Amino acid sequence: MNAITNPTAAMVVIGDEILSGRTKDKNIATVAEFCTGLGIELREVRVIPDDIETIAAALNALRDDHTYVFTSGGIGPTHDDITADAVAEAFGVELPVDERALAALKSRFTDLEMTPARLRMARIPVGGEPIENTVSAAPGIHIGNVFVMAGVPMILEAMLESLAPKLKTGVKLASDSVESRVGEGTFGDELAEIQAAHPDVRIGSYPQFGRGTGYFAKIVLRSADEAALRAATEKVRELVARLHREHGIEPEKAGP
Amino acid sequence: MNAITNPTAAMVVIGDEILSGRTKDKNIATVAEFCTGLGIELREVRVIPDDIETIAAALNALRDDHTYVFTSGGIGPTHDDITADAVAEAFGVELPVDERALAALKSRFTDLEMTPARLRMARIPVGGEPIENTVSAAPGIHIGNVFVMAGVPMILEAMLESLAPKLKTGVKLASDSVESRVGEGTFGDELAEIQAAHPDVRIGSYPQFGRGTGYFAKIVLRSADEAALRAATEKVRELVARLHREHGIEPEKAGP
Repeated sequence: MNAITNPTAAMVVIGDEILSGRTKDKNIATVAEFCTGLGIELREVRVIPDDIETIAAALNALRDDHTYVFTSGGIGPTHDDITADAVAEAFGVELPVDERALAALKSRFTDLEMTPARLRMARIPVGGEPIENTVSAAPGIHIGNVFVMAGVPMILEAMLESLAPKLKTGVKLASDSVESRVGEGTFGDELAEIQAAHPDVRIGSYPQFGRGTGYFAKIVLRSADEAALRAATEKVRELVARLHREHGIEPEKAGP
Repeated sequence: MNAITNPTAAMVVIGDEILSGRTKDKNIATVAEFCTGLGIELREVRVIPDDIETIAAALNALRDDHTYVFTSGGIGPTHDDITADAVAEAFGVELPVDERALAALKSRFTDLEMTPARLRMARIPVGGEPIENTVSAAPGIHIGNVFVMAGVPMILEAMLESLAPKLKTGVKLASDSVESRVGEGTFGDELAEIQAAHPDVRIGSYPQFGRGTGYFAKIVLRSADEAALRAATEKVRELVARLHREHGIEPEKAGP
């Protein structure tokens, strides 16, 4: 749709609890906003179960196609935390206890508390390095273009903070939006013409139900080219204003 | 982990707006709960952009491997609603206006309102049938083992209601849970032993932060075998009760 070539990313959400519906994922939105803020295009998210082969296969399918792969979940101390094992398998490397990761854990836990279970969290695949965890000490893993993070939202957010400086950034898309009180089916044909006339702008339309007087849609425009964005947005505003007039919708009602 | 062979499902979430972080997905949790309630195992979710080739490829990758594929998003009247086109491409069939879908739309819209944009919503790939939409008339699509639904959560929920009777159901897993006030690293080794001794029960542990006195984890057990579930749950309760005593945590604090 436009000529920019930003870094791209994929995300792998690891968790039986998301797939069973027991836990509602919050990390997809966090990683999506994080990427958008850095001009990195998040192109795909996969939610998959706690299974080493499945995780390794997803990582290998995605890490060749994207600048970065982010994962969430499965890096705690219990038997169902098998993401590190899957990463080692995906990269074909060993998974020894890492001195840096061990030091991070020992800053938090006494020797007596360093159970075999907790020691699992000090394992880093060969060639990888720990990602700092300011919340609960147990590190994430950075190996190649893969960033392995916790599933607990507070910890994932802290890890994203600490890895952000390592990432290549891209051109952030400028965006604008226009809200319509006439339905998508009413403006859809003319909106398609505006999209066709403005190939450097990506125009999306998002209906919303249950707000006040029936139909309501938000038209969102995004582009790396600010002049093109302004021109297309002006056309959409004119279209929506005309349709509001034709349908007897007063301007002050056409607000958010 | 256990011998049941329930129907399986995959979900495809179609939406640039989810990947950009502009919209937070609510449909994954809805479909996950829906599947679990019917004894259908949701095995994978993919979030992908509004791109016909990408959607068609994802559908073809998933529909052979699963009993059902559910999609959300991209079935409205605007130019960026291209899911029906992608489904037709995936199945290698034409995408004509369908009389049943048209009748559903005409029950809601006058002839004057039936713009070319709205007419797009009456298209059903050859061999498919409409899924009833009690909220806003525009139907979903059922073709082969693929169910195409709206992205608006209220409409997706209504469509799931109407397609539920068409689905094969499986054995619902019984589940139980035990809450621990000692950390995962403290009970992890012994929990792994309980898991190893109870192969017909799937045991997961989910840490929670920021609740009261520090660490807190919920251990969730699931099985199709109720006796096995009870036996394993009893072992986990004993383990947690003993660790609570050893760490001076009073029983009444070990709730809720």
